[in-house]
Amino acid sequence: MPWTLEGHHIPDLARGAAVLGTGGGGDPHIGALLATQALATHGPVQVVTVDEVPADARVVMVAMMGAPTVMIEKLPSLDEVTAPVRALEPLLDGPITHIACAEVGGVNSTIPIVAAAALGLPLIDGDAMGRAFPELQMVLPTLSGVAASPMAFADDKGNTGILTTVDNVWAERIARAACIEMGCSVMISLFPQSGEQLRETMVAGSLSQAAAIGRAIAAARGANEDPVGRAIDELHGRELFAGKVIDVERATTAGFARGRARIESDGSVLELSFQNEHLLAQADGVVLATTPDLIMVLEHDSGEPITTEGLRYGQRVRVIAAPSDERWHSPEALAMVGPRYFGYDVNPHRFDGIQEVA
Amino acid sequence: MPWTLEGHHIPDLARGAAVLGTGGGGDPHIGALLATQALATHGPVQVVTVDEVPADARVVMVAMMGAPTVMIEKLPSLDEVTAPVRALEPLLDGPITHIACAEVGGVNSTIPIVAAAALGLPLIDGDAMGRAFPELQMVLPTLSGVAASPMAFADDKGNTGILTTVDNVWAERIARAACIEMGCSVMISLFPQSGEQLRETMVAGSLSQAAAIGRAIAAARGANEDPVGRAIDELHGRELFAGKVIDVERATTAGFARGRARIESDGSVLELSFQNEHLLAQADGVVLATTPDLIMVLEHDSGEPITTEGLRYGQRVRVIAAPSDERWHSPEALAMVGPRYFGYDVNPHRFDGIQEVA
Repeated sequence: MPWTLEGHHIPDLARGAAVLGTGGGGDPHIGALLATQALATHGPVQVVTVDEVPADARVVMVAMMGAPTVMIEKLPSLDEVTAPVRALEPLLDGPITHIACAEVGGVNSTIPIVAAAALGLPLIDGDAMGRAFPELQMVLPTLSGVAASPMAFADDKGNTGILTTVDNVWAERIARAACIEMGCSVMISLFPQSGEQLRETMVAGSLSQAAAIGRAIAAARGANEDPVGRAIDELHGRELFAGKVIDVERATTAGFARGRARIESDGSVLELSFQNEHLLAQADGVVLATTPDLIMVLEHDSGEPITTEGLRYGQRVRVIAAPSDERWHSPEALAMVGPRYFGYDVNPHRFDGIQEVA
Repeated sequence: MPWTLEGHHIPDLARGAAVLGTGGGGDPHIGALLATQALATHGPVQVVTVDEVPADARVVMVAMMGAPTVMIEKLPSLDEVTAPVRALEPLLDGPITHIACAEVGGVNSTIPIVAAAALGLPLIDGDAMGRAFPELQMVLPTLSGVAASPMAFADDKGNTGILTTVDNVWAERIARAACIEMGCSVMISLFPQSGEQLRETMVAGSLSQAAAIGRAIAAARGANEDPVGRAIDELHGRELFAGKVIDVERATTAGFARGRARIESDGSVLELSFQNEHLLAQADGVVLATTPDLIMVLEHDSGEPITTEGLRYGQRVRVIAAPSDERWHSPEALAMVGPRYFGYDVNPHRFDGIQEVA
């Protein structure tokens, strides 16, 4: 059933999306701020499930591309968020009817809310990953042969661009080069799909799931229960490690926030490796979980999700893992988003510790 | 009067354009090859003067963007040359009626011939610089407030992009970043202008001038006269130096071919500094000529122009200078294309040795 997304939904939704965003997708507070402002200005947004979308709907994704570390300093305006959608529309065979999320994550679950509110369009309850990933071709529609382009990008200065590429990796490469030149943060609109395609290619219900996770964490806090435990239940996940952050290395290179964090407890150390998102968790040399499964860092007591750029020395955290959408475990998908793609010399592991075929 | 450009015009035109290209604009042999092939396949091209263009004509420039050192290894196809024009047309308010040159130079005088032939459109006898410069905003229309965008770019793989930018420097920056990612050589179409604008903003007659220079050099060779002297007469220029190339430093960085060459004669040394084009000539510490005036290197006896990427140890050459279009000497123009813009710590000098106000 369609539901109406209003300002009071945003805190839970942004919190839960930041959990599913596995450390990436940008700062959830900024995301919440933008969405709340857009809903206050333009009114509520209708959310429809992928099954409710008409087969001939014309759906585009809207997202922020760049290093989330930059976005903290450069809040996008409403104009910047709607600019790529407006730039893309003339290249399609009719008006855009729905907005969708490319990923779940602090900002990239809420930027589409901003776009939908400002453009007066309904929003799809779903996304293209069921988590967050750092490169734009890393979505389930790519595995189904859906083209990222025509795609549009826009910056805060008023520059816009449109790309039509031979494949989705070229869309990522050219857009990333432009994004870096434009200040490491642009708004993009891409992956035009019909309603019929959408039903096959998206992770259904992930906005509702994000809201449910966020609500569960808040409810547990109110009831003096364990918020992290409630998040784990919602995610069908498990706790990998609990401890104190003792070291964070981070560099914004080639448009990404890359780095490693070490978390210590009683002499044991968990090492997290990230590129915008947490991609690999190893403890004392043993691989505990890898991309594409979800690796998440929550504040120890409050269960508040901590993004890769929010990691700080001294934080008490719990690292949890949960299974990704099953489609991410095919050999083609693992070639695109498995740990080796990101330069980690390990085979993909299921979150439950079972090693996959490399 | 309109004239018809045929295959037999190409050798003189390409040679003369390479002289005016001041070392840049790409290899004249590759340019000649492409144009000859296009004219053989598609028939001759009508060339019209800027005065003959209807006021409501819709004119776009076509050029190669990138490091000319790369283009030697990657010959563009007809499809690649016409792709940016086809991509740009839907963003204009009607069909494109004429093709123009952005600069004169080995490849960038002949790429527009290829585009005009393949698209069946007339070509403007003129260009936007009266020489070659390395960045796309460096054209006289920029000084008149004409926007470079909407502009389109296309690579050899089939990727295309369109940019709409807030100014021409942003068009250069974003297109350059994309160009580098796409392999350091793309075809671009940009600076849409009306016929009325064209009359104000372009250097009129530069294709005819290029052909005349090329013809004069060839005629002098046939008559056993001095080809370099004849080129100097056509250019109203003067010889700065004659000698042997004793040293060439060159690096392709940030999408440009940058470097220096030293030419020696009887213990005196002329140093040439270039960034795609020759920009500065100094002998024994004295500045002889600077951008925006034209600095050209011709083979000592044959008068064949030598591009910056064609400079080799041991070549016997003559370095000549000639005045640029007068509009390049305004303070605004010197800020855009004077020696300091390119990082050379010298004031602009007129080719006749008179120093300009910095």
